[in-house]
Amino acid sequence: MNDAAMGRFPVPDRSDLPDDLLERIDEETERAGFTPNVFPAFAYKPSHFRAFFDYHDALTEDTTLEREEIEMLIVTVSGVNDCLYCVVAHGALLRIFAEAPKLADQLATNHRSADLSEQHRAMLDFAVKLTEEPGRVGDRDVAALREAGFSTEEIWDVGSVVSVFNLSNRMATLADMRPNDEFYTMGRSQE
Amino acid sequence: MNDAAMGRFPVPDRSDLPDDLLERIDEETERAGFTPNVFPAFAYKPSHFRAFFDYHDALTEDTTLEREEIEMLIVTVSGVNDCLYCVVAHGALLRIFAEAPKLADQLATNHRSADLSEQHRAMLDFAVKLTEEPGRVGDRDVAALREAGFSTEEIWDVGSVVSVFNLSNRMATLADMRPNDEFYTMGRSQE
Amino acid sequence: MNDAAMGRFPVPDRSDLPDDLLERIDEETERAGFTPNVFPAFAYKPSHFRAFFDYHDALTEDTTLEREEIEMLIVTVSGVNDCLYCVVAHGALLRIFAEAPKLADQLATNHRSADLSEQHRAMLDFAVKLTEEPGRVGDRDVAALREAGFSTEEIWDVGSVVSVFNLSNRMATLADMRPNDEFYTMGRSQE
Amino acid sequence: MNDAAMGRFPVPDRSDLPDDLLERIDEETERAGFTPNVFPAFAYKPSHFRAFFDYHDALTEDTTLEREEIEMLIVTVSGVNDCLYCVVAHGALLRIFAEAPKLADQLATNHRSADLSEQHRAMLDFAVKLTEEPGRVGDRDVAALREAGFSTEEIWDVGSVVSVFNLSNRMATLADMRPNDEFYTMGRSQE
Amino acid sequence: MNDAAMGRFPVPDRSDLPDDLLERIDEETERAGFTPNVFPAFAYKPSHFRAFFDYHDALTEDTTLEREEIEMLIVTVSGVNDCLYCVVAHGALLRIFAEAPKLADQLATNHRSADLSEQHRAMLDFAVKLTEEPGRVGDRDVAALREAGFSTEEIWDVGSVVSVFNLSNRMATLADMRPNDEFYTMGRSQE
Amino acid sequence: MNDAAMGRFPVPDRSDLPDDLLERIDEETERAGFTPNVFPAFAYKPSHFRAFFDYHDALTEDTTLEREEIEMLIVTVSGVNDCLYCVVAHGALLRIFAEAPKLADQLATNHRSADLSEQHRAMLDFAVKLTEEPGRVGDRDVAALREAGFSTEEIWDVGSVVSVFNLSNRMATLADMRPNDEFYTMGRSQE
Repeated sequence: MNDAAMGRFPVPDRSDLPDDLLERIDEETERAGFTPNVFPAFAYKPSHFRAFFDYHDALTEDTTLEREEIEMLIVTVSGVNDCLYCVVAHGALLRIFAEAPKLADQLATNHRSADLSEQHRAMLDFAVKLTEEPGRVGDRDVAALREAGFSTEEIWDVGSVVSVFNLSNRMATLADMRPNDEFYTMGRSQE
Repeated sequence: MNDAAMGRFPVPDRSDLPDDLLERIDEETERAGFTPNVFPAFAYKPSHFRAFFDYHDALTEDTTLEREEIEMLIVTVSGVNDCLYCVVAHGALLRIFAEAPKLADQLATNHRSADLSEQHRAMLDFAVKLTEEPGRVGDRDVAALREAGFSTEEIWDVGSVVSVFNLSNRMATLADMRPNDEFYTMGRSQE
Repeated sequence: MNDAAMGRFPVPDRSDLPDDLLERIDEETERAGFTPNVFPAFAYKPSHFRAFFDYHDALTEDTTLEREEIEMLIVTVSGVNDCLYCVVAHGALLRIFAEAPKLADQLATNHRSADLSEQHRAMLDFAVKLTEEPGRVGDRDVAALREAGFSTEEIWDVGSVVSVFNLSNRMATLADMRPNDEFYTMGRSQE
Repeated sequence: MNDAAMGRFPVPDRSDLPDDLLERIDEETERAGFTPNVFPAFAYKPSHFRAFFDYHDALTEDTTLEREEIEMLIVTVSGVNDCLYCVVAHGALLRIFAEAPKLADQLATNHRSADLSEQHRAMLDFAVKLTEEPGRVGDRDVAALREAGFSTEEIWDVGSVVSVFNLSNRMATLADMRPNDEFYTMGRSQE
Repeated sequence: MNDAAMGRFPVPDRSDLPDDLLERIDEETERAGFTPNVFPAFAYKPSHFRAFFDYHDALTEDTTLEREEIEMLIVTVSGVNDCLYCVVAHGALLRIFAEAPKLADQLATNHRSADLSEQHRAMLDFAVKLTEEPGRVGDRDVAALREAGFSTEEIWDVGSVVSVFNLSNRMATLADMRPNDEFYTMGRSQE
Repeated sequence: MNDAAMGRFPVPDRSDLPDDLLERIDEETERAGFTPNVFPAFAYKPSHFRAFFDYHDALTEDTTLEREEIEMLIVTVSGVNDCLYCVVAHGALLRIFAEAPKLADQLATNHRSADLSEQHRAMLDFAVKLTEEPGRVGDRDVAALREAGFSTEEIWDVGSVVSVFNLSNRMATLADMRPNDEFYTMGRSQE
């Protein structure tokens, strides 16, 4: 696997990995056309690999949110946390899922300057506060989401994406995970 | 289950839960003598329950750290993030695992005033920086952990505990999870 | 006196202290059943001892506030300022005066997650702002206290407790005052 | 007394004040040639008046510091806390005691741009940290003061001035104490 | 020219300066009665001297604001940015243009404690936010200026003064520009 | 001209513009193949247009820095200030001048995670500090640039770029300047 997937921990050899990790890595490689570096990186510790991607799968598969909303949350949170891997990799996913080639750069820089519906602006204001000042989130913040039209389960799901990427951003920066070159350009063409 | 386990989302009925959640909840109840509120709270969304506790299990079962070090990290991070549930519940666990009845209050308030070895002080300085300023963590911070005697895998494990509780603190505060009364007093007697 | 009362300044011998300090220390010792370390600590400089405890006496004896409200303010402010001595010692006093064994841990961690009346929530929101951003406190903050039912003199008294403990927290942390073991457990039983 | 001494609490009538307050106010008025507004302001609550000025007297009369060093600390701390009364009133005192007509404006704006000895720069760096981040002050900060030549008692005295003016700044801003016109211009002429 | 005009870059000799700079410096010297140090300082790089003072001239000559409003903005912004040169030099200009000998010290310390109309308070609240948190300025902030009576062009002009002095404060602090002694006392007499 | 060049001020008609602005706008349009929105935006106030672009020209034409270093500084500073227009427009310029298709996204997100020489890392550390905490920049920061190999004039030039874009970022965000679509994709292909 790509030895340069991360800068601060050794990337394991394929031959040392358990079968379930190999299978997941191969699936992801086939889907993307390349192996996103977060997979060889988390393979450093297989038990963490499984837990991390299971949580990620739960967020995207058992959710009340649109996939593009999930990616909007991820890019915004990762911008606040200055996480290179997540901004670049999920920026690519956001461009593709939202069919919006400019949105990722807007959200990574400043969601307040992005082209957003009022509802998504409220969602991302909440995401930024839960990221920056978790201890100050309270009834008023939850009420603002409700007024913007979010249901109880949607609020849980928004909070969960924000929370998991507060995990993810920290591991990616600590490990110095490197975004694959492909992510920088995917989904940028306009038509 | 305890309807007051959290303040901002409904707690599901036992009868609505899948078997694997019931089994885990019953095991935890037997172990602790009561049902810690984080279990009925996360049961709101079973797929998240599984992912969250699997990650937690990986952190405590497949680790190079002592259990008391894990709890020291959790209480310190949760203090920085002002998370009531995690400070109180893991404060109890820390008192018990470390057999140190004062340490949890010290770490939750200010790890700089706690009775710590130099190695643990370095570990917690790192934890605070990764929590407060994840984008500023870099080579110098990792080098400081190495100088304090931490191996590569120990650094990964430290970072993982910090990162997962940056998830956990946000969900607990958002959901307004309430610490069970038992946690406030467990492990406080000195002998 | 207890040589370990503080970590960064020498604790004076009883035989070197003026009579009025000895008298006060003996009174406090009799009342508490032990000598709270703040007394031998401030005895390092008798003129400061007198001024500090006179201010403290004025706050608690000539006041429009309930004693438990004073201790609520102190624990909250000391939590914001990460002051170990004050959180632990006044946490004990709060548990006793408010007959509320969980309230101190809640306020020290995050007053926004505590079980509070609306009036006390407003009081503590004000206390946190005056502690964190004194230069931004203005007419609107004072008006919010009035709307919550506080009289002019009560507002002065609230502000005074907050201000004195902004002094106290700084001296306790600078001197590395150590909470007596007794404070960690006082008032925790529920009946 | 001057009804405009403060903006948010009523200034008491002279005829309602206890004798010891009147005596102190008259002494101060004679010394300064006018009544500094902090005296009628604190007279709102005589027990606090006594405690506050007793502490202030202890700081200036029983001290290892030069009076100009005390005023340097006060102006710097009050600048950090954005306290108008203390910056202007103690700015005047600093100009007079230090015979340095520019120093107060320098310290109130930015002590890092002031004309200072290395020792005083270290003293004020410490004062700013104890003001802004009291919970982060530790052994290294105290060691830096020692290396700059400060004795144990001098460190206590520096810390005490900083701490008392963290009280004072908060009460002055809360009460909206107004600096007397005289303070703005005192001590500004060069010869 | 005054070699002590700044502390971190060499001040050029008059004989090395192009004619247009000499002319401007001589005009300013005649107007003020001394050479404000910002002129010899920026002469270090003549192309920057021209651009900087052209922008400054545009701000003061082609504007919808009163000159005293411009100086109020400058002193407030420079206070937030802790810029000694700009606080002292523009403090003098503000005292003169506003015929208000106390206003500069008030704004440099805390505009919230200054004697201001509601309109000017709104203008300075905006200036502080655009200085401290430029990325958070949005529609609501602009609407607040409109409600306070500012026209579209006035809002542009307010924003421009704030923005240019965010440039100016940074260059002055970096270069360690020293305020001329004259600025400290100009305009302080009351009649 | 493009009415959508900015969201909060009206864009003037070409027919209302003075000849020198038209000439500059036409030159820029020819060079880029489209009219970058910052030109019609600043044309709102022709005197500011001239001053702003004169300063910009001085920065890029009379400089000791490489053009790609200038753009590295701009993208980093604009990322810290969350300025969408500057990140996207100067991101494009950086990709082209540095022939480095990934560098802009890296610097806009977190210069600490970018592929940089040690010298450029020191340059950008300095740029971030001068942006975030201008009042704390001092001798040690300037010395760090010298140790990294920067000459006196290079340090002035670095500081000037940082300072001018602290102006620019504020005007662009206040005016809600919109990056042209072309900027998002320019210079992204690798060969």
